[in-house]
Amino acid sequence: MTQPGILIVLSGPSGAGKGTICRELLRNCPNLHYSISATTRQPRPGETDGSNYLFMSHDKFRGMINDNDFLEWAEVYDNYYGTPRTYVMDLLNSGKDVILEIDTQGALQVKNKFPQGVFIYIMPPSLDELANRIHKRGTETIEAIKNRLGCVRNELSYVNNYNYIVVNDEVSKAVARVQSIIDAEKCHVSRNSNLIDKIYNLCSQ
Amino acid sequence: MTQPGILIVLSGPSGAGKGTICRELLRNCPNLHYSISATTRQPRPGETDGSNYLFMSHDKFRGMINDNDFLEWAEVYDNYYGTPRTYVMDLLNSGKDVILEIDTQGALQVKNKFPQGVFIYIMPPSLDELANRIHKRGTETIEAIKNRLGCVRNELSYVNNYNYIVVNDEVSKAVARVQSIIDAEKCHVSRNSNLIDKIYNLCSQ
Repeated sequence: MTQPGILIVLSGPSGAGKGTICRELLRNCPNLHYSISATTRQPRPGETDGSNYLFMSHDKFRGMINDNDFLEWAEVYDNYYGTPRTYVMDLLNSGKDVILEIDTQGALQVKNKFPQGVFIYIMPPSLDELANRIHKRGTETIEAIKNRLGCVRNELSYVNNYNYIVVNDEVSKAVARVQSIIDAEKCHVSRNSNLIDKIYNLCSQ
Repeated sequence: MTQPGILIVLSGPSGAGKGTICRELLRNCPNLHYSISATTRQPRPGETDGSNYLFMSHDKFRGMINDNDFLEWAEVYDNYYGTPRTYVMDLLNSGKDVILEIDTQGALQVKNKFPQGVFIYIMPPSLDELANRIHKRGTETIEAIKNRLGCVRNELSYVNNYNYIVVNDEVSKAVARVQSIIDAEKCHVSRNSNLIDKIYNLCSQ
């Protein structure tokens, strides 16, 4: 019997570098799969269903919410975004690890529905650095950056709901830490009951 | 404020390869210290106090038992062996990681007194392999090996008291897994309250 995969949930303040860490992990770990979101928004040019997003109608999305078919979902500017439960479970049951990169509210929803996931909070090394990173993206005004920094404190109050905190002082180090967390979790006694039963039965022969 | 070190407790069936893994870890991890046992037995030629063992009288040892000064202790053939609590705590508080290689009974005693330790059960890949390893040491008769294998099942019933199980299929892989466990544990939210408080305070300024 295959050991089920692990669901890894990465979140943390905007600008902490979650996206970069996630891309590097996907490059390094062949068993790791990125969880695609479902959305009701229209595909943009070049986006294809099943590759960037699972595109669906408002009616279908609402039906899935009612059937508890999302690990987490949110409404943003009249459109829905969410993580379909079956999509993730099928990957996990086939032994693949799945990574979700979502905000704190989404992570809390996932934890509520799937507490055996591994919840990792990514933190920039300092608030100055966080401001720099957001600024470097060049898409935000100083005012917006200040606003975001103000939100960090609020977000931080959720950190105790996570299992791990990884400071993104250097991307390569942060990626190595997350990889260690995945490797360690695979050795966790609670994830190895099949193996333990097998050895126990061998001893009883 | 220094982040306290981590106490790593390695145990598992005799012949699982704990000693080899422990030596390799000590070679690879400069921050890792081997915990020396206290004993009442006489030093053998070449053994020095504080390097191989902390040698002490029966009276002193019994006094320390009464003062709850051992993380674990046992009496073996009229001599006492134990892990002095202060010795380990001083290392941990100075930020060093400490590794203990002890049997299941000792590990359970440590867990009772220091549950924030990391308890790792080392398992040989198969029972045949376990028999081979014990046999290769050349110090045991077939009868003794059978006896030991019979004890493995009993030992295994304690595995759920451990945090991690590491199968020693290849020494280098097993060592890498234990290293990942140490690195992951350093990122655990419960071990990073100082860091979290620091960031929280920075945000509040």
